[in-house]
Amino acid sequence: MATDQTQTTDAAEAYGRLEERVERISNVGNAAGILRWDQEVIMPEAGTPARAKQLSTLSSLSHELLTAEETGQLLEELEAVSDELSGDQRAVVREVRRTHDRAMSVPQELVEEISETTSNAHPTWTQAREEDDFEQFAPTLETLVELKREYAEHIDPDADPYAVLFAEYEPYLDLETAEEILERLRDELVPLIEAIDDSDAALATAAFSGQFDDDDQEALARDVLDALGYDWSRGRLDTAPHPFSSGTQFDARVTTRFDEEDLLGSITSVIHEFGHANYTIGLPDEEYGTPLGESRDLSVHESQSRLWENHVGRSRPFWEHFLPTARERFPELEEVSPREAYEAANQVYDDNLIRVEADELTYHLHIVIRFEIERALISGDLEVEDVPEVWNDKYEEYLGVRPETDAEGCLQDIHWSHGSFGYFPTYSLGSVLAAQLYAAAEDELGDLDDRTRDGEFDDLNGWLRENVHAHGKRYTTPDLIEEATGESFTADYFLEYVDSKYGALYDLE
Amino acid sequence: MATDQTQTTDAAEAYGRLEERVERISNVGNAAGILRWDQEVIMPEAGTPARAKQLSTLSSLSHELLTAEETGQLLEELEAVSDELSGDQRAVVREVRRTHDRAMSVPQELVEEISETTSNAHPTWTQAREEDDFEQFAPTLETLVELKREYAEHIDPDADPYAVLFAEYEPYLDLETAEEILERLRDELVPLIEAIDDSDAALATAAFSGQFDDDDQEALARDVLDALGYDWSRGRLDTAPHPFSSGTQFDARVTTRFDEEDLLGSITSVIHEFGHANYTIGLPDEEYGTPLGESRDLSVHESQSRLWENHVGRSRPFWEHFLPTARERFPELEEVSPREAYEAANQVYDDNLIRVEADELTYHLHIVIRFEIERALISGDLEVEDVPEVWNDKYEEYLGVRPETDAEGCLQDIHWSHGSFGYFPTYSLGSVLAAQLYAAAEDELGDLDDRTRDGEFDDLNGWLRENVHAHGKRYTTPDLIEEATGESFTADYFLEYVDSKYGALYDLE
Repeated sequence: MATDQTQTTDAAEAYGRLEERVERISNVGNAAGILRWDQEVIMPEAGTPARAKQLSTLSSLSHELLTAEETGQLLEELEAVSDELSGDQRAVVREVRRTHDRAMSVPQELVEEISETTSNAHPTWTQAREEDDFEQFAPTLETLVELKREYAEHIDPDADPYAVLFAEYEPYLDLETAEEILERLRDELVPLIEAIDDSDAALATAAFSGQFDDDDQEALARDVLDALGYDWSRGRLDTAPHPFSSGTQFDARVTTRFDEEDLLGSITSVIHEFGHANYTIGLPDEEYGTPLGESRDLSVHESQSRLWENHVGRSRPFWEHFLPTARERFPELEEVSPREAYEAANQVYDDNLIRVEADELTYHLHIVIRFEIERALISGDLEVEDVPEVWNDKYEEYLGVRPETDAEGCLQDIHWSHGSFGYFPTYSLGSVLAAQLYAAAEDELGDLDDRTRDGEFDDLNGWLRENVHAHGKRYTTPDLIEEATGESFTADYFLEYVDSKYGALYDLE
Repeated sequence: MATDQTQTTDAAEAYGRLEERVERISNVGNAAGILRWDQEVIMPEAGTPARAKQLSTLSSLSHELLTAEETGQLLEELEAVSDELSGDQRAVVREVRRTHDRAMSVPQELVEEISETTSNAHPTWTQAREEDDFEQFAPTLETLVELKREYAEHIDPDADPYAVLFAEYEPYLDLETAEEILERLRDELVPLIEAIDDSDAALATAAFSGQFDDDDQEALARDVLDALGYDWSRGRLDTAPHPFSSGTQFDARVTTRFDEEDLLGSITSVIHEFGHANYTIGLPDEEYGTPLGESRDLSVHESQSRLWENHVGRSRPFWEHFLPTARERFPELEEVSPREAYEAANQVYDDNLIRVEADELTYHLHIVIRFEIERALISGDLEVEDVPEVWNDKYEEYLGVRPETDAEGCLQDIHWSHGSFGYFPTYSLGSVLAAQLYAAAEDELGDLDDRTRDGEFDDLNGWLRENVHAHGKRYTTPDLIEEATGESFTADYFLEYVDSKYGALYDLE
């Protein structure tokens, strides 16, 4: 690998120019991120028409910068002198090349048609769900499937269109790997959940039942973030209808929501969003504006939220540590033991139909169902009109429960109304990767239970900073996994984790 | 004037293209406005480096769109067929031409040098003020004066450079008119304030002394905004270190700050910011993104804030209306009468050295002093090193009080560290215009005191909407004043207003 010393002036100059363009694109994108955060969290209700125009302008400026002739020329120049570039520089060129080529290959009219269709799809989907009437949404869904197929064909006419769409969210992980992992989850979780269903073990599920004041929940959410080491100088906590996290390493904000009847839900949701924001904050400051200062894709992001939510927040040592803090806000928890809190946080609900309310095990069957259906939709093996029946059949087959309405069936998620086909798998892949990363961290640091019990998260976070966050997009996802864990992506650790944890919880041999 | 019917396809097409460009520039500017609001109000402290880069990118994109060859070509095309354009279209072309020419005439390196110098000037000024040491700031001020002189020369080498700088903030009002008005204020207010000083009248100044809880003050600030008719669906109230208002007609936010010892200050400050936001909200929705949907310049904006703050908020009928609401938040005001509140809100402090703490009369002498000094600085008639002495001499001459330190003298304002020379006059011009507009509104609507006493502001606001807000930048400032009031810009109404009000308050002759 060449070092900077051997770099010619031309290469250095071209790289500098590319970097400048990339930084501009990144700044426009980050500005749009603030505008969207504002819109979700604090914008006055009448602000929508102007905000939509502002976001649309930023999006076209960004597209124009990315597809400008000069961007393509610089990429070609730099690829021609690739051996004069450092590894980091080559990684930047690789990432820009990828987004540039995708942007170039799809006609702007198609991008706008998709954007317009999804804008209109949202109210249609909302109404169809409210009125529990899939037929209202079906024509829109059909249009979106067609448009996204067309979109995929522009990008790569020879590839499986679903693989092309999946690569929007997870560009470097091949679909076969993803599929193998999802199939393994299905094949191993279905019998595990059945065994749990058959088990006589009764978990202490009532630990968090009651009414919990919203303001006190918010105070406790801040305690959670304090306990985990959230860097408040680089973030904030606000409420939003759908919890999310967004921003840059300098400003990575968390949102959540509160339901007076669901204290546990707000705690786990805040831990989840902490994981996302903490990844963002861990990206290197000095690489802000280039791919080296940006997070890897959705599975890696989700691995960070799931690692903190599940491996830390749903662990028994965490509740030993955190319950005293929770009791200060909610004295009624005085009666609850860490063991009971742990059990309540890990109960498996085999009769639940709603993905966002699912536990750590059944969750993945919700995802597998969506993956199988959207794949068949995009390939043309499934007609839109048949979605509700196939959906319900699969719920019956994998989870032993059949939705009685489309509202609690195939209309429950917003994703397809966004035209997001290929997004769902990244949720499960994130959980699987979380387990692999956590095992690698323990392999290096030793068992982390005692540290969690003492509220000491610096070692774990330090490991994640060094092995995941600090790299930004330096490595592709498979390479990042290999570098961080010494192995290629595997579901082994996730399955070991759930077998061991739920075997003990539910007294399975 | 030609109508759309006679417009050729070419003219319509060129106008459409100009409009599209202008809307993009406006959207980028409004996005930057949200980013600045966020930075002032809620951004985490570590966010600055990334935010600065985002704002700098948006600013250069906007500059590039404005100075692009196509913008200039479209302007030329449209000016050539000017008689085929409607009056509104001609107004848009006039406004774009002006900003385009200014942007074209100043070399980008100079713009960047000024931007960099002012960025560094801010901490220098802050420290100089903290350490009460003008000499620390003097070299920076000297550089800024030179750079701004150079800036003005690029725009118009034949004009008085101060006039060119003033036109950045007030483009269509000639400096002679502004100067005449400021001189009249000086000549008439100095003896009026002396007469007040000599008067035996004792105003009830203690009405609002005490300690007032910040949260209750915030609740009362919301009451104030409710009472005046702030459209909450298009705005919000937050706290910020320096109160301001910003946004668009769809989203015009207000900020304020609270000081436990200064309840009156927070009320008048919120009314002031209401006036700004209410103007913005009144701009026509359908013209969003073009100059017809944007506010006229600083004097007109300030006329709206001062009209509400002074002619409404410092009036006796307002306190008759609002005191009962204030007493609900602060029962200690039970003892205060409307007359006493009115007197407290209008006390003239002739020993005050600080502009932002000044009353409605002495305020303008603070402005005149700054105007005279900055004008002499830009013309070269005054050396930077002599500023403190000249400043103190003028305070002694006009206000009868001499600053003992530079911190409470010529270092008190941030404006010069921003390189803003020519900005100060617009504050006074705004007050003067407020009086002229209020008089014109009363001329049409009849005396407004009874309506204010009843908390009925719809008539006044309707008049402002129709005669000021609805026009956006359709008219130049002098034409807008003429259209709204039937007269050219004059200090007559302001001087009548203060003579009558303060004559009665202080029993003069």
